[in-house]
This record gives sequence, structure tokens and C-alpha cells, in this order.
Amino acid sequence: MQRILVTGASGFVGRQVLDALQDCGAEVFAVSRSAPAHSLDKARWAEEDLLAPDGPKNVVARFRPTHLIHLGWCATPGTFLTSPENIRWLEASLELLQVFAECGGERFVGVGSGFEYLPAPDSLCKEDVTPVLGSTLYGATKQALGTVCLQAGDTLGLRTAWVRLFHLYGPHEHAARLVPAVCLSVINNQEIRLSSGSRRLDYISVTDASKALAAIAMGSVSGAVNVGSGEVVTVRAVAERIAASRKKENLLLFAPPLDEEQMPLLAPDITKLRTHVTWQPSMTLDEGLEATLEWWERQTLEQRNG
Amino acid sequence: MQRILVTGASGFVGRQVLDALQDCGAEVFAVSRSAPAHSLDKARWAEEDLLAPDGPKNVVARFRPTHLIHLGWCATPGTFLTSPENIRWLEASLELLQVFAECGGERFVGVGSGFEYLPAPDSLCKEDVTPVLGSTLYGATKQALGTVCLQAGDTLGLRTAWVRLFHLYGPHEHAARLVPAVCLSVINNQEIRLSSGSRRLDYISVTDASKALAAIAMGSVSGAVNVGSGEVVTVRAVAERIAASRKKENLLLFAPPLDEEQMPLLAPDITKLRTHVTWQPSMTLDEGLEATLEWWERQTLEQRNG
Repeated sequence: MQRILVTGASGFVGRQVLDALQDCGAEVFAVSRSAPAHSLDKARWAEEDLLAPDGPKNVVARFRPTHLIHLGWCATPGTFLTSPENIRWLEASLELLQVFAECGGERFVGVGSGFEYLPAPDSLCKEDVTPVLGSTLYGATKQALGTVCLQAGDTLGLRTAWVRLFHLYGPHEHAARLVPAVCLSVINNQEIRLSSGSRRLDYISVTDASKALAAIAMGSVSGAVNVGSGEVVTVRAVAERIAASRKKENLLLFAPPLDEEQMPLLAPDITKLRTHVTWQPSMTLDEGLEATLEWWERQTLEQRNG
Repeated sequence: MQRILVTGASGFVGRQVLDALQDCGAEVFAVSRSAPAHSLDKARWAEEDLLAPDGPKNVVARFRPTHLIHLGWCATPGTFLTSPENIRWLEASLELLQVFAECGGERFVGVGSGFEYLPAPDSLCKEDVTPVLGSTLYGATKQALGTVCLQAGDTLGLRTAWVRLFHLYGPHEHAARLVPAVCLSVINNQEIRLSSGSRRLDYISVTDASKALAAIAMGSVSGAVNVGSGEVVTVRAVAERIAASRKKENLLLFAPPLDEEQMPLLAPDITKLRTHVTWQPSMTLDEGLEATLEWWERQTLEQRNG
């Protein structure tokens, strides 16, 4: 029987990946520094710090996974882009890659982001075509792991894939980020100052992205794989759709655009995902944003009721 | 007083870097798995395996360098491009970078190669402009270290530079490579089969490249820095110049060109080296090739005389 290990399993993406793996037919194992109570039934958990000496070795020895989705990384908002922990996560990830291969691992799926790409004006980012760059320490270490993970497959006897996630939204996202901030502004009936919102991005619900990740891990696609919705939308439109659903557009205070000529585009070509992965999006952007707003409404209500 | 440590100090480049550092005014320390007898007077040596647990820590703790030129890596001809040791060298290098910073290090110079670039037809490779890629495990791990090294400087409090060496030639190069192979063909009066030689490259003597490396380490240039001669030459012309100096052009058997349209170019723009590094080449290509041929003649003679 296949045995799939998810690192970073208590995070924004990890918890949904555990959900997405429920019906995959494999045994599911999860690791993070602390296991969230609500997810204990979804996997066998190890509370292990992968940055500790022998952390990667201990986890792999304990579960002997055949498949691995490696989401663990530092993600503290405000500091993660330049934290020295990025280097330690890269080291731990390289160690994980090697011990996984030594202990009978078969399929390694690493997770990066669309920010790895150096986007060209008006072009979608395409795997193996669009150049990549590491413009922060976070980006550099993620890109480093991705490059090594893809090239190491043959040498280590692993089937590897490197998933580049584009803009995610959904339950449990950090409250300072765009979608939660707009939801909370609408719920609390407070004005919110936003950028011009002229950037054109690809927003995908964390639920659908997690389903794609699970399908990629259980499937056989190799190399880099973009995960996005395939729909390009301005940041302004995302905020407006959320506010409009409660008729609160007046709360959104957009800054004037800096440069009318250029609407920067960071969005993926998802031909490879569509063609080589057994996956379909389960919701439209409007449905996903509505579900997210309802989730924040419930959270707010629960907090108010103590 | 400045204290400079050179890793991989017994290698093709390392031994010449020790020479180049003789008059730099800093104390010079060297590390490799075994110290060559002839270089013992040029530096204080540590015989240490940087891939061993605590290898990087031990070397840094022993010498407490302020400056570091990191040349150590796997380089076994025939296997180094795909060896799993590349991943262990990347791990050891990340460890070295961190312990060096923790122990008072100031200046870290890592060493990559021109092969990191994805060359565009008829364009010189330019730092921060030409995209990079990792097309082998060796290339991927080197590129990974370079990307991280440059982004980690601010976080770790280091002044970092990443040197991309182009085609080197000179004493002690592996005998299977182009310049030694042609030298030995000329010396032994044996025909040699070569590719069409239509690639256009930048050949720089390992002596001049090592002087550039030493000057970069003792200077303040930051970011990626190409090191080459600035002269583009076909592989065919390099072979012909060596053979012509002994009137042995007839020994060179070039294959027909595969594609007459395109003469692939992999050569650096060296504006940054010329502008920001106190360095001048000390020899022309003809002088360097002549010196190299004479070195191989002496080697051959010594071997024949037992």
C-alpha cells in the first residue's frame, strides 16, 4: 500500500492537502511541530521539528513513506522573506530528499510558488520556458530546492515534481493578506485602503490547489508544474467581487494607479496541469470568494460569542 | 589582520589561487582532504573533509577566517555532473556559509561557472540580465548555492560575491579536456579527433582567473561576477593555435560542422570585472597556450625520465 507523508501539515495548505488525500487510497502521515486537534483523525501524526538534527531522518524512519509532499518551510508573515531560517529549511529539505530516497521513497513533490518566475510583460508563466529568479532569500532558497529536486530525481532514483502555486485564498489564510483583509473590512463595515489593484494575477482556492497537489503526488507528472485556476483577474476585481456580494463597494479605497501604461501580470499557463494531472477545479472564483467570506463571517461570529 | 581561507585548495584553480594570494597582505589558510606537499609553504593547511559531520564547523573554528574563497566541490571527471555528492556539497556549503557568518566572517566568495547561464544566440552572458538555469545536478546545485549566497548576504551580515568562471586552461588541467588533449597530441605526434570546434567560447588562463578571484575576494564587488578574458574564440581556433606553434596542424581531425547556420556562443560580458575589480590579464591567449604547451612538454619529459 502506498504511504504518503505530508510535511507542514498543519499549515494553510497542508491542512487542506490532508483533506484532499482522504480518498486517495494511500495511508496518510503528517508531520509538523504541533498537530492541530481537529486534524488528528485525518492522518497519523508526528510532532517533529524538521530543523532539529536528525529531524528529517526520524520522520522518514518512523513512517517509511513511498510518497512525500513537502510543504514545511518558514512562513512567519513579515519576516519569512529574509529570515535566516530559509537557509536551514533548504538544508533540512535537502536532507529529507536524500533520506527519503535512501529509505525506499519513490515520489517526491516539492512546493514552490509563482514568485519564482521572472515574468515577461503580457506573457503567462510557462514551466521550462519562463526564466526563474530568486529575488529574496525565501525565493532563492525555494528556487534552489526546486532546481535541485528536479535534477536529483534520476541520480536518487526518485520521480520528482516541483509545484509552483500561484495566488491562494481560502479559510485559515493570514488575516493581513488581501482576501481576509477585504472580508474583515466588509464584515466589520470598515473602510480599507488598498493599492491601485492593477496587478493581474491568478487566484485559486486553497481547496482546489490542494486537490491538485494531491493529484500530482499520486500521479506521474514530472518536472515543474504550475498550479493556478487559469483565470487572470486584477487584484481590484477580487476585492470588488467580495465587497459587491454584500453591497459594500464603498468601503474599498483604492490608490490611484502608479503607471497606467502597464498592468503587471503574474499568472500561469496551466496547460500542463490540465493535460497531465487528473484534476478539475471544483469552484469558480465567485463561489470560492463567497465561501471564504462566509467562513470569515462564521469565525467572527464565533469570536464575538466568545 | 585579514585572514583568508581557501577551500578546494589543492585543485586546478585552488592551487593557483594560493599563488595569487601570496602578496595580498592577508594570512592565507587552505583546506582540502589532503594537502599537496609542494603547496605547504603557501598557506597554513587543514586536511579536513568538508562533507564530514562538523567538517565546515571545524575548519572555521580552527582558522576563524574573515574572508573565504569557496572552491571545494566534487569534480571527478566523468561522474561529477550527476553525482549525488553534489547535493552533499550544497549542504556542506550552506553550513559553511552559516558558520562562517556566525564566527565573524565578513567576505564570502563562492565559485560557479559560465554554464549556469542560458545563453541567447549572439549575446554575451551578462550578470543579472542573462537568465540562469541548472541543466545537470552539478549545475543545479551550483546555481542553487549561488542564488542563496547572493540573497543571504544581508541576512547573515556578509559581503558576498558569486564568481562565474568561463573556460579555463593551464597547468594541472585534467588530461581529457580540450587544451591538454591537443597539447599531448602535438607532443606525442598523434592525430586527434575533435568536434567541429565551431562553438565560440571565452578561454582564460587559470592563472589570470585565479588572480581575478583573489582580487574579488580582497575587494568589495558584490553580486555575480563573470570571470573571463573578454576575447571570444572558436574551439577550433584554440586547437589550431596550439598545433600551429609546433607546425602540427595536420594532426587535428575536425568533424564536419553540424549546423553551419549557428555557431553557439557561450562567453561573458566582463564589463563588471573590468570596472569593479582591480585586475588586469597578465598574458594573451597565445602566451597562455604556449606556456601551457611548455608545461605539458616538461611533464611529459619528466615522466619519460621516470
